Amino acid sequence: MSNEKELLESSKKAAGYKAVDDYLSDGLRVGIGSGSTIKYVVDRIKEKGLNVVCVPTSFQSTQLIVDAGLTLSDLSRTPSLDITIDGADEVDPDFNIIKGGGGCQLQEKVVAYASKQLVIVADYTKDVKHLGENWKKGIPIEVIPMAYVPVMKKLESMSLTPVLRMAVNKAGPVVSDNGNFIIDAKFQPPLSNIPQLAIDIKMIPGVVETGLFINMAKKVYFGQKDGSTTSR
Amino acid sequence: MSNEKELLESSKKAAGYKAVDDYLSDGLRVGIGSGSTIKYVVDRIKEKGLNVVCVPTSFQSTQLIVDAGLTLSDLSRTPSLDITIDGADEVDPDFNIIKGGGGCQLQEKVVAYASKQLVIVADYTKDVKHLGENWKKGIPIEVIPMAYVPVMKKLESMSLTPVLRMAVNKAGPVVSDNGNFIIDAKFQPPLSNIPQLAIDIKMIPGVVETGLFINMAKKVYFGQKDGSTTSR
Repeated sequence: MSNEKELLESSKKAAGYKAVDDYLSDGLRVGIGSGSTIKYVVDRIKEKGLNVVCVPTSFQSTQLIVDAGLTLSDLSRTPSLDITIDGADEVDPDFNIIKGGGGCQLQEKVVAYASKQLVIVADYTKDVKHLGENWKKGIPIEVIPMAYVPVMKKLESMSLTPVLRMAVNKAGPVVSDNGNFIIDAKFQPPLSNIPQLAIDIKMIPGVVETGLFINMAKKVYFGQKDGSTTSR
Repeated sequence: MSNEKELLESSKKAAGYKAVDDYLSDGLRVGIGSGSTIKYVVDRIKEKGLNVVCVPTSFQSTQLIVDAGLTLSDLSRTPSLDITIDGADEVDPDFNIIKGGGGCQLQEKVVAYASKQLVIVADYTKDVKHLGENWKKGIPIEVIPMAYVPVMKKLESMSLTPVLRMAVNKAGPVVSDNGNFIIDAKFQPPLSNIPQLAIDIKMIPGVVETGLFINMAKKVYFGQKDGSTTSR
């Protein structure tokens, strides 16, 4: 009898493997996402011996690529990618996505945007009707450190509840791979007009990027408890 | 007979002094801009012995405040400002503004946005009918280093001509006070729909901020060659 954690792991593995099997082949330029599901993507690429060029979305992602012995590149050498496979914290039926629980949403969005397509892989808890249904931590928003107080005040005026993400193994806030702070903007679901919200948040001076991915992914694989996958 | 450089300096001084005289009084919380005109703003605050709290917009601005012996604060302690006085590279009749020739547009915009009003001080060459009339260097765009190549490709697709700003006393590109690169997006004037262009550029993943200041300043002082000022 598997416990919940094992079921989650096997669902992540199922989604990661399926996306690689369906989408990747030799010669492709591939953005490699970040997070707990992506290690299965990299495992599968290695297992199949695929000859692809990998562009990472974080320090974690770089290490996965290097440890697997895959070809590492970056957006300066490889500015146009065929596909990015990345995880998600939640996906609604309109393909509005929250990402950034792991604090990597900035580079993840840059890499996805440089790709012809973005394929999401996630476990069954990420498949929701409304953003915020299971994911209670809010929208991750990367800000420059000197701006975090006025940005939080502005977010409050937009009926969001911002919380500065604090570090665990260091005093003070989490610092992103790009040297910024991360504000988690909690909200009461359902959100209305998510595409406009994504614009309104990014237009606040001091906001570097949001974890709202709108109109970017066209395909999502959700791993299930029995090791199968559903997709849409 | 004054040469052009001296005329420019006296016009900057006239604008800086006039804005302080018209807008500043004891007790105000004041954002201090960056650039060659702002030193006259700080000079005048010191000369008048005004008791104001100053929030800087750059390293240069911090030094001006400290050297003048004024009270230094920041947006964490003073997140709401009464007014910011800042310079500009060009201002059109609709108060669309290009800033960032000095590479400080990110912090400048954050501080201006935290202020009840933004007053611009500039010399007579900055007063134009169309952005790009005198200012040929384009729109300064701050980007995270890993994204500069795809961002430049995207700007090209928007009919802009992006140039990575290179450093003079260091090998490689200029690095901003916030650790980012700066792309100067040259353009053929006149620009159409500047407010939408500002949104379109900032929404590119990897763009941290643009030097287009739209609907932010309500008052501009232009210093003239004879040491007078005009305003609108």
